[in-house]
Amino acid sequence: MMMCSSQGVDTCNRRYTVRTCTGSEDYSAVIGLVDAWWGGRRMSPMLPRLFFDNFCDTTFMAVIRDEAQPAEAQQAEAADTKQRDEVVVGFLCGFVSQSRAGEAHAHFIGIDPAHRGAGLGALLYDQFFKAVQTRGCTLVHAVTSPANTASVAFHKAIGFEAVPAIAPDAEGDERKGGTGKARSSSGASEHRSLGEQSGRVPVDRELVHIDYDGPDDGDRVVLEKRL
Amino acid sequence: MMMCSSQGVDTCNRRYTVRTCTGSEDYSAVIGLVDAWWGGRRMSPMLPRLFFDNFCDTTFMAVIRDEAQPAEAQQAEAADTKQRDEVVVGFLCGFVSQSRAGEAHAHFIGIDPAHRGAGLGALLYDQFFKAVQTRGCTLVHAVTSPANTASVAFHKAIGFEAVPAIAPDAEGDERKGGTGKARSSSGASEHRSLGEQSGRVPVDRELVHIDYDGPDDGDRVVLEKRL
Repeated sequence: MMMCSSQGVDTCNRRYTVRTCTGSEDYSAVIGLVDAWWGGRRMSPMLPRLFFDNFCDTTFMAVIRDEAQPAEAQQAEAADTKQRDEVVVGFLCGFVSQSRAGEAHAHFIGIDPAHRGAGLGALLYDQFFKAVQTRGCTLVHAVTSPANTASVAFHKAIGFEAVPAIAPDAEGDERKGGTGKARSSSGASEHRSLGEQSGRVPVDRELVHIDYDGPDDGDRVVLEKRL
Repeated sequence: MMMCSSQGVDTCNRRYTVRTCTGSEDYSAVIGLVDAWWGGRRMSPMLPRLFFDNFCDTTFMAVIRDEAQPAEAQQAEAADTKQRDEVVVGFLCGFVSQSRAGEAHAHFIGIDPAHRGAGLGALLYDQFFKAVQTRGCTLVHAVTSPANTASVAFHKAIGFEAVPAIAPDAEGDERKGGTGKARSSSGASEHRSLGEQSGRVPVDRELVHIDYDGPDDGDRVVLEKRL
């Protein structure tokens, strides 16, 4: 399995490494963790294995060495040892759009709550931007829940802008603004909860794309960043 | 929006047309229907808009003309009229793997229960096979729930083979076979429910990939077909 784009940073006296996803092995390592990382919410249906299997070269893992391992093992460079000594503390799963030329999509970013606030989200995105830029992308999309104001604030902090929802009159879409539907969805469909930023600014109504991902808790904030 | 690979067949005195997905417009048309097509199960979290937006050139829609429209409107060829007169009765959403050379993945196939048994599933897959073959693919994967025996039977009928799960001893994976976990998951994570075949043959235990899509109802049958 190709391993590339690795980068180490020393933050808070811990050494984080961001590396390309290996596919199924990394999926197995994180899929049992994400619900807990989101405070018990059921996130796994939004992250089927297909994303790690088919888009592993634009999916990145943030790992630390397992501190319970002896120092010699931590320094071992053999691939099999490397896998055993690592603990995954975050990941960003994304892909190059197949039908939208020059565009990429960041689908899912998750950070272990115990490792939030250390800049891991920005580090993961930095690797993702480089990877998709190499593949010809100049625009990146991300989608989050309007209830997840921390995620919206984080994305804005790293250069994303929220895409306004089209006004009801412009499209004649009766669902938009006319149903009295609450603008803040429950967390059930929340894509990411970074907690990287503490800014809890309510999301403007005109930025909420009603029923974007379906009629059941599918309201979304759509973010984009030019590379 | 490019429209290609259209094909019409006359089945049961109805005219079905399979055409390439338009993206967001088609997503909005179907996302509110899929839960009902699955008998009320909540399927929409498995089909976020990103699939229709980013993989529309390998996603196909089965449509009929709206019979409530006057005959003249049915025959109109103008693109705007075409959209209004159509009723979506099925779709297959898939993509070319980005990181697995020569492979494609069929993610989600749904057929309106009122139009099952007419060969629409096979027709949709036929278009998908042609589309991904043109893009260099020689292998197609599909994943379904072991509880969905109709889907397993359908896929086998059109040439897929089930990929055996790796034996527990071979990988030392304690989750496999050692937990006493029930082999039939609930329908909550079921990817597709075609009802195209009536064969209700139980899925062999060795074909069930335990926790494939996560520990919560993530048991899956993995199918593949060589093109």
